[in-house]
Amino acid sequence: MSAEFTIGIDLGGTNIKGGVCDAQARLTTTHSVPTEAEQGFDHVFDRMQQLVRELLERAQLSKNRIAGVGLGTPGPLSAEEGIVHNAPNLPGWVEVPLRRMFSEAIKMPVALENDANAAAYGEFLVGAGRAVRSMVMLTLGTGVGGGIVVDSHIWRGADDTAGELGHTILLPNGRPCPCGQRGCLERYASANAVGERFSEALAAGEQSSIANEKGGRPTAVDVERGKGAGDPLATRIWDETCFYLALGCINVERLICPELIVLAGGLIKAGDSLLTPVREHFYRNRWNLTKPALQINFAELGTDAGVIGAASLARERIKAEA
Amino acid sequence: MSAEFTIGIDLGGTNIKGGVCDAQARLTTTHSVPTEAEQGFDHVFDRMQQLVRELLERAQLSKNRIAGVGLGTPGPLSAEEGIVHNAPNLPGWVEVPLRRMFSEAIKMPVALENDANAAAYGEFLVGAGRAVRSMVMLTLGTGVGGGIVVDSHIWRGADDTAGELGHTILLPNGRPCPCGQRGCLERYASANAVGERFSEALAAGEQSSIANEKGGRPTAVDVERGKGAGDPLATRIWDETCFYLALGCINVERLICPELIVLAGGLIKAGDSLLTPVREHFYRNRWNLTKPALQINFAELGTDAGVIGAASLARERIKAEA
Repeated sequence: MSAEFTIGIDLGGTNIKGGVCDAQARLTTTHSVPTEAEQGFDHVFDRMQQLVRELLERAQLSKNRIAGVGLGTPGPLSAEEGIVHNAPNLPGWVEVPLRRMFSEAIKMPVALENDANAAAYGEFLVGAGRAVRSMVMLTLGTGVGGGIVVDSHIWRGADDTAGELGHTILLPNGRPCPCGQRGCLERYASANAVGERFSEALAAGEQSSIANEKGGRPTAVDVERGKGAGDPLATRIWDETCFYLALGCINVERLICPELIVLAGGLIKAGDSLLTPVREHFYRNRWNLTKPALQINFAELGTDAGVIGAASLARERIKAEA
Repeated sequence: MSAEFTIGIDLGGTNIKGGVCDAQARLTTTHSVPTEAEQGFDHVFDRMQQLVRELLERAQLSKNRIAGVGLGTPGPLSAEEGIVHNAPNLPGWVEVPLRRMFSEAIKMPVALENDANAAAYGEFLVGAGRAVRSMVMLTLGTGVGGGIVVDSHIWRGADDTAGELGHTILLPNGRPCPCGQRGCLERYASANAVGERFSEALAAGEQSSIANEKGGRPTAVDVERGKGAGDPLATRIWDETCFYLALGCINVERLICPELIVLAGGLIKAGDSLLTPVREHFYRNRWNLTKPALQINFAELGTDAGVIGAASLARERIKAEA
């Protein structure tokens, strides 16, 4: 029997998600385990192997039915060389030759991919981007991640570090970013940045009626709820977030001009209260250079995107190398 | 005898430059005529035909030795459809089906290309980018133009409008741009913007010892000279220009991550007084994500780049359609 399936693994700081994919990029089986990243590299590496075994068992497939395993991993990494240079949310993961090590451990071909690229590719294949040939995805979570698909392929750049949309500079000498730059888009348009900017405004003496439900620091969810309740400060911070995000989309259009920008990540749970103002700011502020303008839509696959993308990229990479 | 040559035409608002190129993208003959754009479309169209005849005569080639003619034209345009939508510096050029019209007039295959893309492709083939596979060019003149080469091909985007680097937004709610956006890179890093920002600072009451040589409004050349003479305002404006330009380069690296950024256009006549501070600001302010970082170099071909690029892109497009 031919090896018609691939396995995709999305290695996150909190959970490791896995799935078995068929040749049409349909998930047939999924499973997820906590990463327990704080227990170090060896522990996480073991859990990844267990997850592969668990997936095979649940799918009732033997290894010879699996063409390979795709690992979507936080970067920076070299997809070509199969090395994770440094995964900030995974203590101890520095210069790990993960592709070789994991392939030797599970005795299957392995491909490595940046997790944001994997998620973008999943959405491109069977999600929000399935009808287009070029697409840029912005993932709005703790930070702002990105993935670029041009001519139906992931664009990785010269150094596997293209698509770092969150670290394009939107405000010269702006808010400091942990990356060392100032004014990164991520400091204005990530879920975290919404809460941070709101807290800073409060600390600077601005007034608001809203508070975190659990008594902690206000989150993006609190700010969005405050806006819904008519709180002026929450309304301003939320609208500024949508404005900055729209400018980020304009820059993507000017530079790359894809057919579609897909917004993904935790922040899109806000639904129309995010999408409508982002689109409004985008169409109001952009150079009316092309008609029709590109589309801005939400991602459709949720956390499955990374698993599907990793599995599908593994299929292509392994085919290309065969 | 085979048709081993192509002709490239670079249609500018001031001059129409043309050249005959061999299959190795070497210019064998060049000629240039004033555009006389103010006399309208028909006049310019005639001059383009005369230029082709003149080039054939000077090169002593018959038409059957020419595979085709590439037209590098100010955009926005559709390379695919061969239509110039609107050329701001060419009065009367609106929705012109230029490829078909010019091909019928000169009875040779014609390909159409955005002039900034053509210039970038020329530099990529035989100029500053000849050793790389991915490159982004920024042309610093009246405005800031751009061209993107990924995997050895011009990236045109979904709508032939990718690479508009000058109109990425660097400063939300910043300086108004004729394109309708605010805070475009072009308003800070073009040759024109240097003179404008200097004049505005003077108008706002800042002091400077420099003046325009001819008594007019100070230009980028005046500001650069003022910096050389130690004038504090000129020094500040020039350094800010280099800083903004470096941030533009950082954004190109984060988003596209090419091997090389090439700076071209009038502003590069400033030489090291531009390149050194741009590189310094770039390396000081960028996220140290990849080692080594991309290179920033000057273009090498001057105004020949657009002619060579147009000729070479014509060769590829005509070959692809044959």
